[in-house]
Amino acid sequence: MSGSLVVVGTGPGKAELMTPATQAAIAEATDLVGYGPYLERVPAVQGQCRHASDNRVELDRARHALSLAASGRKVAVVSGGDPGVFAMAAAVFEAVEAGDPAWRSLDIRVEPGVTAMLAAAAEVGAPLGGDFCAISLSDNLKSWSTIERRLKAAAEADFVIALYNPASKARPHQLGEAFELLRAMKAGDTVVLLVRAAGTNEARVIVTTLAEADATQVDMRTLVIVGASTTHRVGRWVYTPRGAKLKSQRTTAPTSAMTSPEGL
Amino acid sequence: MSGSLVVVGTGPGKAELMTPATQAAIAEATDLVGYGPYLERVPAVQGQCRHASDNRVELDRARHALSLAASGRKVAVVSGGDPGVFAMAAAVFEAVEAGDPAWRSLDIRVEPGVTAMLAAAAEVGAPLGGDFCAISLSDNLKSWSTIERRLKAAAEADFVIALYNPASKARPHQLGEAFELLRAMKAGDTVVLLVRAAGTNEARVIVTTLAEADATQVDMRTLVIVGASTTHRVGRWVYTPRGAKLKSQRTTAPTSAMTSPEGL
Repeated sequence: MSGSLVVVGTGPGKAELMTPATQAAIAEATDLVGYGPYLERVPAVQGQCRHASDNRVELDRARHALSLAASGRKVAVVSGGDPGVFAMAAAVFEAVEAGDPAWRSLDIRVEPGVTAMLAAAAEVGAPLGGDFCAISLSDNLKSWSTIERRLKAAAEADFVIALYNPASKARPHQLGEAFELLRAMKAGDTVVLLVRAAGTNEARVIVTTLAEADATQVDMRTLVIVGASTTHRVGRWVYTPRGAKLKSQRTTAPTSAMTSPEGL
Repeated sequence: MSGSLVVVGTGPGKAELMTPATQAAIAEATDLVGYGPYLERVPAVQGQCRHASDNRVELDRARHALSLAASGRKVAVVSGGDPGVFAMAAAVFEAVEAGDPAWRSLDIRVEPGVTAMLAAAAEVGAPLGGDFCAISLSDNLKSWSTIERRLKAAAEADFVIALYNPASKARPHQLGEAFELLRAMKAGDTVVLLVRAAGTNEARVIVTTLAEADATQVDMRTLVIVGASTTHRVGRWVYTPRGAKLKSQRTTAPTSAMTSPEGL
């Protein structure tokens, strides 16, 4: 088998947020497999086959892509965001595991991308500046009790919480239930950000509080960020300080001694 | 004040993983401010001033950048990875908050990038395929007890755990303590990934278990991922299924009904 499969993410939407490595992987593919709207984000290449599908058949799509690769095609599976975060990469490996043993010898790789929470955070400042977690509110593949357990743990640990897949027509009530659960554990003035279409030219940000957050303002294109106790506004921005300094202490000017090694 | 400040991240290392938006922001700046090794990653532009500093003066660096912007310069603050994740964006807003009130009127924006955990995950498959959290082990700015509380919550909730800043010369024992804490709460065969220099041409991956993970194999350039109970190997890859399917159930072939809406 001389085919290959690369799983890529287009980033949040704007072409300028797609990495050059992902652009190259897409341009070199003979076949693109993906959800229609993500395929529409990438420029057409002559002679390239596009296999568009709807959004609720990830495993079928993964199997189709693996079959194409096994037949010798150079396949790119196209996700939005980063393909490893609530997107197609895990579905591809699920399909490998359950599928033709020969698929385990295929040349498969993943290209990282800019995931939605990073684009959403950048729209408002630096709300992910402290420790944080990412939870998908979709209960198609896990139980709601698992999601509740994770929300509770995140509140107890004072993580900033990024909520992916916060709402859909099939699940209109879950975000409201998540807000209720968090209201019982966190202060009412906790900052909540509803960021729609982050990383596109139509980005729209609502800065509100946990007490006032309205789940009906959220749709599938919205990323919800629930702040930690330290997340707050400065000017027109919202950020979470790198340390655990509390809001009540934040009038104290930081000193030069309060520095840390910068991340990777 | 006609100056501006943009906070960018170069991504994990390879030029092909820096977004075009970040490349453009860097190219348009009159002044670059950043940690020396990050500045070395970006191509020189004639007439552009570079203000390199060492890695332990983030707040001073942020103030310097804000002063330059206030004096009318077009400043890019250059981080590694994504600037909003354990990097310079939060430091800039801390400096805004504690500094000259006029800084609040400055044109400040953040460009998202590919953060280290996404690059590390892509090197091995899709270990961040389920709900996950990111914790910096640096206790320069928060207490070790806060870090312990977050590790415990993450273990209780069965998050995949990405550990940033896992070790430094000043803090040689902390990762070992974190592993000990997690060993008391999670199975010994939990997958642990030590990914050094992810997203560069020198990337090196160690796939091990929580029982056998050796903190002395980790340095400042390593990103550590501790799996959830469902994280496992398939072929030469490691991934976390999208749902909460347990290892013991994983011989059951997934059905088409097990699909979920793809993320943002």
